[in-house]
Formats: sequence, structure tokens, C-alpha cells
Amino acid sequence: MILDTRQKTKFNLRPIKQSFAVSYNYEIHFTQNLFSVKNPTLAQTIAADGEKKPKKIVAVVDGGLLEFCPDLLQQITNYANFYAEVLTLAVEPMLVPGGEAAKNDPMLLEQIHQLVEAAGICRHSYLLGIGGGAVLDLIGYAAATAHRGVRLIRIPTTVLAQNDSGIGVKNGINAFGKKNFLGTFAPPYAVINDSAFLSTLCDRDWRSGIAEAIKVALIKDASFFDFIHEHTTVLTRRDMHTMQQLIYRCAQLHLEHIAGGDPFEKGSSRPLDFGHWAAHKLEQLTNYNLRHGEAVAIGIALDSTYSYLLGWLTHAELQQILHTLAALGFQLYVPELAETSSLFRGLTEFREHLGGELTLTLLQHIGKGIEVHEVNLSLYKQAISLLHDFR
Amino acid sequence: MILDTRQKTKFNLRPIKQSFAVSYNYEIHFTQNLFSVKNPTLAQTIAADGEKKPKKIVAVVDGGLLEFCPDLLQQITNYANFYAEVLTLAVEPMLVPGGEAAKNDPMLLEQIHQLVEAAGICRHSYLLGIGGGAVLDLIGYAAATAHRGVRLIRIPTTVLAQNDSGIGVKNGINAFGKKNFLGTFAPPYAVINDSAFLSTLCDRDWRSGIAEAIKVALIKDASFFDFIHEHTTVLTRRDMHTMQQLIYRCAQLHLEHIAGGDPFEKGSSRPLDFGHWAAHKLEQLTNYNLRHGEAVAIGIALDSTYSYLLGWLTHAELQQILHTLAALGFQLYVPELAETSSLFRGLTEFREHLGGELTLTLLQHIGKGIEVHEVNLSLYKQAISLLHDFR
Repeated sequence: MILDTRQKTKFNLRPIKQSFAVSYNYEIHFTQNLFSVKNPTLAQTIAADGEKKPKKIVAVVDGGLLEFCPDLLQQITNYANFYAEVLTLAVEPMLVPGGEAAKNDPMLLEQIHQLVEAAGICRHSYLLGIGGGAVLDLIGYAAATAHRGVRLIRIPTTVLAQNDSGIGVKNGINAFGKKNFLGTFAPPYAVINDSAFLSTLCDRDWRSGIAEAIKVALIKDASFFDFIHEHTTVLTRRDMHTMQQLIYRCAQLHLEHIAGGDPFEKGSSRPLDFGHWAAHKLEQLTNYNLRHGEAVAIGIALDSTYSYLLGWLTHAELQQILHTLAALGFQLYVPELAETSSLFRGLTEFREHLGGELTLTLLQHIGKGIEVHEVNLSLYKQAISLLHDFR
Repeated sequence: MILDTRQKTKFNLRPIKQSFAVSYNYEIHFTQNLFSVKNPTLAQTIAADGEKKPKKIVAVVDGGLLEFCPDLLQQITNYANFYAEVLTLAVEPMLVPGGEAAKNDPMLLEQIHQLVEAAGICRHSYLLGIGGGAVLDLIGYAAATAHRGVRLIRIPTTVLAQNDSGIGVKNGINAFGKKNFLGTFAPPYAVINDSAFLSTLCDRDWRSGIAEAIKVALIKDASFFDFIHEHTTVLTRRDMHTMQQLIYRCAQLHLEHIAGGDPFEKGSSRPLDFGHWAAHKLEQLTNYNLRHGEAVAIGIALDSTYSYLLGWLTHAELQQILHTLAALGFQLYVPELAETSSLFRGLTEFREHLGGELTLTLLQHIGKGIEVHEVNLSLYKQAISLLHDFR
């Protein structure tokens, strides 16, 4: 007996219906050398709040940056001194380890909360988060939960963080061995993308972030995919101007998607996770030897091949996708793909994380995603075999 | 030099402006004996999600309830068995201590997270939180942060939780000795107010929740204040019908305020905190011997008297407010009010918790709040002295 939900009962007064909307507005700035005192972007962002100045700020910094930017902490201090009428460093910047380690140590979360408390940061003061995607996920979670949310200015320092994870609305840390088990949806106060940080990246990190651009191009914008396809050589030669164009367009597409859809993911649809069910599982199966973007590239290759086998992508389109990924230097196959019983558990875990019905995005053609709710595992095995034999 | 925020710089590409709104909708149901198998309210609430059934649910229960409702856990199990096509108890209900203790032990938060993980609760399953305001604050924080937010059905069991804390959008726990230092804004999936729980309350808890109704009446609805004023005798005699009317109207006013204003408190204005700056401080100064509602009653008396001294409330209005509070059995004076140097630190802490400019709500007249940003401490001392001599 499934209940008639319209049934009235003798027990009840009329329910009160609550209904409201909350607006979110933030800007993503693109700049170079943000802590040069000649660059007013950060100070302008804070000055624009229209509130009494100077504002307290606290910086939490990805410790991995100091290897390549040894003067970063000094630059932050100098910047705060120069713009002292707008902002005050309430305490010394705090360093956190870079990479996934930042999301695996619950003490770091508590330490950031302690910092907010000790520095007297309130909902109208600012936390600056400076680092890669994992570090920003940690800082974002801490900022969203202290005083029910203090203002966070994200300063992403990798390609991946500047075009994807650092500009969106999610944060999180890992718990119980599960990625992003704890977290919230919490838009930043502002994002400042500084391209100068990108020149410090190793080749793997430079390349890795391009995978998310290919992903969003494939599901939403064929001409952006053409742009990437035509610029693989200059991108591998680390041409900064091309990378800035790529990041800008990728960020635009991500932001449009968030604003136009279901920003806080109340439903089961998540098209931006094209290629991600396998990526998440491959990261784990390789003990995180694959970078996230590297795993996403394989996930894209796999789900594109599967889309081809379903009769949606043409053979020419599939070849164009696989050759673009390969030309950028991505591996398209790892032995863990052959561990299909482990790999396919990734489909279940993907469904469980979001909840509700299994919903995968595949490609109808280049530039157009399509959602499915069922998978054919033997066709997926065939796709893995095609990838194995690619080239 | 305050920056010209319109200044363009050679460093920057054009910023991308992100803008979107997120809608929230939930219902507050009013019922009796919600876990009687004859009462379909809870099952209907879950059935109405339109998703595949049965849905997993996990209950977290205020342990203090079992003293008065020893069969509660058995009733929950029976209910789940009866409505097995709609809902499944994924694990046994978890008990947490009642009262402020629930918000002071960080291990409880982790235990609820563990429960969500072990039970495989996803964003489309349900956590039921059953208890007083403090317990619901803890459960709400856990629910809002597991998987970036699982669905929470709140079942408030006190007057205060049914007309105020349990129906709104906040959650939180205490940390670093500060009330609600950690928390989020997270509307529930639904709220079910069961009046049968109210008959188990001791007189202090019955009375205590009325303070928030008086508060919202004074700032928003003179006729609701008249209703309370005219029903003090039957309320002290614990007339359930009158209490249900009071809770219903108080809930309506709170919900309208949240929906019509700044639900997630991005600004500095918080009119629902009329009387609360002193209340929060008095709770602490009395080592929580005062219930929250008892402290709010004193805070209302103090800020009403101060509003009278400022020339806004008439003497007759002030007398009507103070006599209404006294007739319900509230104390209007505690010796801690005389510790003015400690008490007035409450003003600073009140400002710091919300951030920005100090913003207090006072009364222009009964039914109409007014905001001020400055206080006259010697006038406040005079108000304290008047309260001391009341009657």
C-alpha cells in the first residue's frame, strides 16, 4: 500500500508551507601577480563590500607553493601593509599540506576553525584560501562551518582549481575512507585566478587541469572542443596565453552550468560529472598515483568509446577525442581498467554519493551530453578493450 | 588611500560574474501521536518525494524523551514495520543526551556521521531528528555536512523547538566555549510538530518556549501579543488547545520573517534576536541555570524597559509587557543583571557572532520593532534598576 499523499487526517492542523529563495553573486577575477602591491585586485574586492574598513583577513596557504614561491608569505605581509587602510592581516598565514593529504587529516579542519576563533574572524571578515583544489576544498569547508559561514576569497593556484574546482560551489574533506564524505555547498565571496601561479606547475599538473576543459567542451560546446583540438601543440609547449583562454572559457561554461541548473544538486542529474564515475574509482584503484585530471582523461576516453559503441558518437568523432587527449600527453589506458569487477563498483559508489537513481552523462555527439540511467556492462568491457588497443 | 573600486588595471581580463538563486520549500506539519500507526503524516511526507520506495530512514533521538515516552523506540520500529512499503529503518535509532550537553560533545557529531555512513544514507534518504532544540541543532549540523547535506525531517518535542528553533534554517554546535561557533544554514526537508510530546514537559519547559512567542509578537504582531496577554491564566494551567494556537501563530510569524528577509543572515540585521543579547549572556553568567526561554523573558523585559526609557514605549505598554511575562511565571530579574561590566560584554559578543555593525532590535511600540546601532549604557543601568524594583 503506497499512501495517497493527498489524504487528509483527523490528526492535523493545516500545514504551514515555507518557501523562499537565496541569491548568490560572486565574481571570478583573472589577474597576474596578485600580491604585487601594484595589483589592486584583492584590495578592490574587499573595499567593494562597502563596510567599515580596514577589514580583518586571515590567509590559509597550500604549503606546497612555498617551494616555487618562497617569498609568498612575505609578499602577503607586504601587500597587507601597503593596503592597510582596506585590510589587516589578523594573524600570520597558516600553512597546510598540499594535495589530497589536506582532505584526509581532520585536525587541519579544527586548526582552521581555531584560527578563525583566535583571529576574531566574523561573517563580515575574510578568509583567503590559497592553493590547489584539495586545499581549497578543506579551507572552504572550514569557512562554511565557522560562525555558519565566514566570507571566503578563493585564490586557486592550479589549472584544475582555476577552471573547475576552485570556482564552483562545493567544498569537502574525506572521512571514513570516502572522498568528500563531509562538506557543504557554499559559494565563495569571490575568486581570484592568478596566472602567475601556473608557471610554477610541473608538466603533469599543467596538463591535468586541461582534462576538465575537454570534459565540459565535449558535453556543452563543440567549438571550444575544436579550440582545444587545434591548440594541443601550443598547450603542451606551455603557452600561457592559450592556457588563459582555455581556463577562461572552461570557467565560463562551468559557471553557466551551475547557475542554469541545480546549483546545490538536489536532484540526481550531474552532467559535469561526465567521465567521472570511472575517474573516481581509478584514482582509488591506483592509490592516487593518477592525478585527478589524468583519471578524468581516461574516464572521458572510456565514456566516449562507450558512447560510440552505443551508436551515438561517430567513429571520426571518437578518434578526434582520443587523439586530442593523446596529443596533450594523457595516457588513455591503465591496467586497473581491466579489473572490471572493482571498476564497476565505481558505478554503485557514484550513485550512492549523489543519491537517488543512477544517472550517467554520455555523449550524443561532440558538444552535446545525454543522460542515461542504465548501463550495459559487456559493452563497457568492449570499450575497455578498444581503449587497450588504441593506436 | 581607500581604493577606487571601479579602477581598471592592466593586469586583468574581464571578470566573470556568477549569479544564481536557490529555492527552498518545506512544510511544517501539526499533528498528534505521530508514531501511532494510524497517523500517516510521516509516511505521507516521505511518500510525497515521488521517488522509488521504500526509502531508508535513520532516527536520532533525544535520550531525555525516553523517561516520559518509554515506548518511543518500539513505536518507531512498529511504525516502520507498518509502513514498510514507504520507509525502512536502516539501523536502530541512535540516542543522544538532551539539552545543551548535546552541543558540547564533538564526539556526538562524529557518531551521527558514522551512523549515516554505516546505514548508507544518501542525499535522497532521510535522517529523522527527534528532540528539543539543542538536540535538533546537533542533528541538523550532522545532516547538513554528511554528503554535503542529507534530507532531515525534524520532529521537535518542546514548545521552544516547535515554535522557533526547530522550524527555521539554522543548526549548530558549540566550540571553543562559544555558543553555535560551528554550524550552517540548512533548511529541513520537513518539520512535524507533535503536540503529544508537549504534555511530557515540566512546567519550566512548558513556560520557557512561550518567551519566543512573546518576542515575535512584540516586534511583529500586536494582536498576537493581545492573545497571549489574554490567555496567561489558561496557559499557566497548561491548556493544550491554547498552546497549539500559540505555537501555530508563533511558527507562522517566524517563517514569514525568514522567507521575507535575509534567510541566511548575510547582513547585520537580525530582528528575531530582540531580547537575545542579554539572554545569551545571562545564560552564561548563570552557568545555564536559566533555561534559554527564561533568559529571553528577562532580555525582553530589559530591552522593553530600555525602549520605554528611550521614549518609544508608553508606560502603559511597558507595564502590559512586564505583567504578561510575570503572569506566566517568568522571573524578570536575576542578580547577574547587576554585574553590568560582565553583562555589557554581551553586546560585543552579540556583534561579533553575527559580524558587521552592532544592530539591536528594540520596540517602537507593541507589535513594531525598530533597529538601533548605538546603546546608552547609563540608560541600560537605569532599566536594570527599574526591573529590580518592578512590583
